[in-house]
Amino acid sequence: MELAMVNNDLMPITELGAAYQDRGIFFGDGVYEVLRSYDGRIFALKEHLERFARSLCEIWIDGVDIGEVEKKVVTTYEKSGYDNARLYFHITRGSEPRNHLPGKGLVPNFFLTVNELKDKPGEKEHGIKVITYPDLRWKRCDIKSLNLLPNVMAKMVAEQKGCYEAILVNDAGEITEGSGSAFFAVDTERKVLITRPLGSDILPSITRSIVVKIAQNCGLGILEQNLTPAQAARCGELVMAVTTKDIVPIVAFDGQTIGSGVCGKHTKALIEEFARLARGK
Amino acid sequence: MELAMVNNDLMPITELGAAYQDRGIFFGDGVYEVLRSYDGRIFALKEHLERFARSLCEIWIDGVDIGEVEKKVVTTYEKSGYDNARLYFHITRGSEPRNHLPGKGLVPNFFLTVNELKDKPGEKEHGIKVITYPDLRWKRCDIKSLNLLPNVMAKMVAEQKGCYEAILVNDAGEITEGSGSAFFAVDTERKVLITRPLGSDILPSITRSIVVKIAQNCGLGILEQNLTPAQAARCGELVMAVTTKDIVPIVAFDGQTIGSGVCGKHTKALIEEFARLARGK
Repeated sequence: MELAMVNNDLMPITELGAAYQDRGIFFGDGVYEVLRSYDGRIFALKEHLERFARSLCEIWIDGVDIGEVEKKVVTTYEKSGYDNARLYFHITRGSEPRNHLPGKGLVPNFFLTVNELKDKPGEKEHGIKVITYPDLRWKRCDIKSLNLLPNVMAKMVAEQKGCYEAILVNDAGEITEGSGSAFFAVDTERKVLITRPLGSDILPSITRSIVVKIAQNCGLGILEQNLTPAQAARCGELVMAVTTKDIVPIVAFDGQTIGSGVCGKHTKALIEEFARLARGK
Repeated sequence: MELAMVNNDLMPITELGAAYQDRGIFFGDGVYEVLRSYDGRIFALKEHLERFARSLCEIWIDGVDIGEVEKKVVTTYEKSGYDNARLYFHITRGSEPRNHLPGKGLVPNFFLTVNELKDKPGEKEHGIKVITYPDLRWKRCDIKSLNLLPNVMAKMVAEQKGCYEAILVNDAGEITEGSGSAFFAVDTERKVLITRPLGSDILPSITRSIVVKIAQNCGLGILEQNLTPAQAARCGELVMAVTTKDIVPIVAFDGQTIGSGVCGKHTKALIEEFARLARGK
């Protein structure tokens, strides 16, 4: 008889819920998005949905109606009643007995959560500390997939060292991005914002694209360039960008104080400009 | 109110089952093993449990009693009543609301299935066809983790091309291993079995280690060496090795016929020697 065990419970395999046979858990065979709302409005929804559609396409999950996904996200958000919320959703290829090769006619699984998001304003003033860590990820980091173990491991090492984030460094000794964030350096002498060019080794971050757009309003040029950790540490300001927190200054980098150890003036300008865009203030 | 949606069902987040908030699905934050039994006996159980313990250790999942895992695997197998079974189990870091950084005091989740395994004897005579495909995986393929999307994608491309398996090729143009199997070439002139040296870019396959051990009984020397696809295709025999099927001849490699297009004599000797070991015949 085909049997399954979940923790200590033995059962016929036919009694297993679909969640236990999700290809998401067996293989990380799915893609996801994280969004946030500011003051009652979901921010950059269209951009996130476009990226999500691309991720689905890149891993050959077909038959998902993005309009339906949008409707589910928006109506669930509205029902939550939160002004500032964090929205997470993923789609996996479906549930079936484990086999690398997916079965025919599988129906994708949709999963969504909406939580209240409490901003930590102190974080934007005082900044965060980061470490660098080897980029152990796969070669298609442009796909926002559920294969995130190397990201988790990097984050765990960062925490052990009293830091919030790990900035990943590839085999060529270049910074790619944060384990869960985009990374920028501000060359305060040349007044340019430096970030890695898009490619298969980093996520096309929505927050990154917005930061690039608002930089000119802050008097900063844009330079898409690869940086080594040593080159980054010589820049006057370093910045982490992520949907749930938008822009946060990095004030310590592998133990080295960046700038004056608090939020620099260019980063402050970027934070204010981002808030104007996101909150319409 | 914190809300969740599973497919079309909206619910308070508090009503979500633990399976939906498993770090296995959010991050692939877990490790697994696949075993098989031959004629009522689980094969190489000790070796699989040792590798599993190592995988857990490498991703810092603590507090798992491997003796308990063994007991669950053995008793569930015995209850299944199958002589020839496929056993799959994984442990994830636990269930909690999604956050890259795991919470303190998380309890790992255990999951196990036992199915009947029906051998396809024709496969060992007629062999299988394979393609080569870029190795897109992460840099710690020695850990048997749930981050398997690149393996799934490679297998899907193989199927589209009418093949059973994809043999992965790294950026240096060398074969690493199959998307779900170990890979061997037999240099029939020199009578040596060639396989890639162990390292962080391939799984320490149990079947591989057994094949290496039995090769000398088949009159084959062992050469641990990196091969390009062109070098492999020039070898007289190619072999796939995987727990559920042990040894299977590869008779077509990127469309090129290998040897005489059926199971070669050295591969046949390996298959017979493996069966003696596994089935005690």
